[in-house]
Amino acid sequence: MGLKELLLPQERKFFDLLEKQAGFMVLGAEVLVEGLERWDKPEELRKRLKDIEHDGDKVVHDIYEALNQTFITPLDREDIHLLISRLDDVMDLMDGTARRIQMFQPGEAPAGAVLLADVIHRTAQALLGAVKNLEANKNGTVSEASKQVKLLEEEGDSLYHEWVSKLFENATDPLTVIKWKEIYDTLERTLDQAEDAANVLESISIKHA
Amino acid sequence: MGLKELLLPQERKFFDLLEKQAGFMVLGAEVLVEGLERWDKPEELRKRLKDIEHDGDKVVHDIYEALNQTFITPLDREDIHLLISRLDDVMDLMDGTARRIQMFQPGEAPAGAVLLADVIHRTAQALLGAVKNLEANKNGTVSEASKQVKLLEEEGDSLYHEWVSKLFENATDPLTVIKWKEIYDTLERTLDQAEDAANVLESISIKHA
Amino acid sequence: MGLKELLLPQERKFFDLLEKQAGFMVLGAEVLVEGLERWDKPEELRKRLKDIEHDGDKVVHDIYEALNQTFITPLDREDIHLLISRLDDVMDLMDGTARRIQMFQPGEAPAGAVLLADVIHRTAQALLGAVKNLEANKNGTVSEASKQVKLLEEEGDSLYHEWVSKLFENATDPLTVIKWKEIYDTLERTLDQAEDAANVLESISIKHA
Repeated sequence: MGLKELLLPQERKFFDLLEKQAGFMVLGAEVLVEGLERWDKPEELRKRLKDIEHDGDKVVHDIYEALNQTFITPLDREDIHLLISRLDDVMDLMDGTARRIQMFQPGEAPAGAVLLADVIHRTAQALLGAVKNLEANKNGTVSEASKQVKLLEEEGDSLYHEWVSKLFENATDPLTVIKWKEIYDTLERTLDQAEDAANVLESISIKHA
Repeated sequence: MGLKELLLPQERKFFDLLEKQAGFMVLGAEVLVEGLERWDKPEELRKRLKDIEHDGDKVVHDIYEALNQTFITPLDREDIHLLISRLDDVMDLMDGTARRIQMFQPGEAPAGAVLLADVIHRTAQALLGAVKNLEANKNGTVSEASKQVKLLEEEGDSLYHEWVSKLFENATDPLTVIKWKEIYDTLERTLDQAEDAANVLESISIKHA
Repeated sequence: MGLKELLLPQERKFFDLLEKQAGFMVLGAEVLVEGLERWDKPEELRKRLKDIEHDGDKVVHDIYEALNQTFITPLDREDIHLLISRLDDVMDLMDGTARRIQMFQPGEAPAGAVLLADVIHRTAQALLGAVKNLEANKNGTVSEASKQVKLLEEEGDSLYHEWVSKLFENATDPLTVIKWKEIYDTLERTLDQAEDAANVLESISIKHA
């Protein structure tokens, strides 16, 4: 049996809020892909990501308020904390990429950076799917999404490897290498962090199976 | 009511020792600022910071000994451990900057590095203020100092952003960029760590309010 | 009294499995030294380390299975988890060096990299010694091995400092500096991680003294 049937309307807002936060993460990833494809507006990319992060902070605030006002929460308090904080880390690292692009002004993105951002986008969608399925928690839907995140992390790892190799192979300007190397590193860490978030989601889902 | 009135003389040595340790952190920050201003003696900078770190280690040792000999401590044992370890991390990262300067021999420091070291110095002073106020724990003095550390961290963040941008913009020699980039990163992490120490101080203060 | 006398045969397999895992770590270190000496086969180095890591994963799996089937374990469950995970981190970082060498194709290794890998090899042997002595846990043998790991970490630290200095001093090509700097960093972190593993071993040994 899922959690859905057991909850009072008031308690269901946690899932709505978590879903909202995961939605901002998907939006952030979309902005990141676009910002890497249309690379000539680093300031705009940063601003848009910061705005989304700000909206996400409000949701986090609402979740904490809801936690304080609710005696019995549909998930363990510490699990909600952990999940929020992991989703927040993913958002932070996406913003970290935007920050570096604004700081380095590295020019046109190599194809590998766009491809990695696209993997991040698909990962964010899979995480949103897992969050959406958390309430009903039906036959392995959360664990399915979590497995998908792990596969995407491996896809990202292999892209990272391939494109960092190319970066050094085709290097003409060392400064450009330094810049994109650090951006690739940040994109790859975003996927690691997303995998951590997926692990939290999976362990919550198992606990309530 | 503060903690001061409740303590036996023997128990008050914890605050004296913590204050002593925070004092070494301020001293370390002073040496760091000076070492970046007068950049031609990297070996001396490193030696001086190492000596201060060594003196700090003795204080840490005294605190642990006092913990072993005291049945009832004025703060929770784990809070004392956590606070010492966070202050130690700040000291470590200041030494990390000195180590890199000795290793890289990067020549004259860009103004941004001196400015960041100055923010670290003011942060260390704010932390010392918080430690000094911890015993009396009067109306938000600790929390005030802690807020100041957060503002200084933001000031540092914005300096970091500005000067790393400049580093790449005005780059002539890639090796110099690599060296100062890593030094800027270490300075910025020092401020992050100081913010963690401030959070520990604030939470101890709230617990005993 | 050591642990050995108290254990049923079935419970002793934990020590056998831990020893097996530490053995793979020594083997990995040997492959790493060789791969840095004979630097012209980065793909082969990576493949060999991956194979060893894979064999190690099977041992980890066996330990978890044994944990699930055994009611009374010879060491605390969380200590076994912690020890496995620390040994695994060392293995991961050795593979991290191989991954970077494959990705960067940095050419002939500077002597410092081979020397650091040799310190890692001796550290892995000391860790294996500590794991072997954990069951009997006789007069400070584990703590002796743990002290040795700390000394080796200091030896590595000083080598790291010396050779990174040289790397910048004698730099001709910035890209080569970037590559070897990151490889040196990874080798040094491997020793830090090994020290963490030694600390876990020592604290387990003290607990059962």
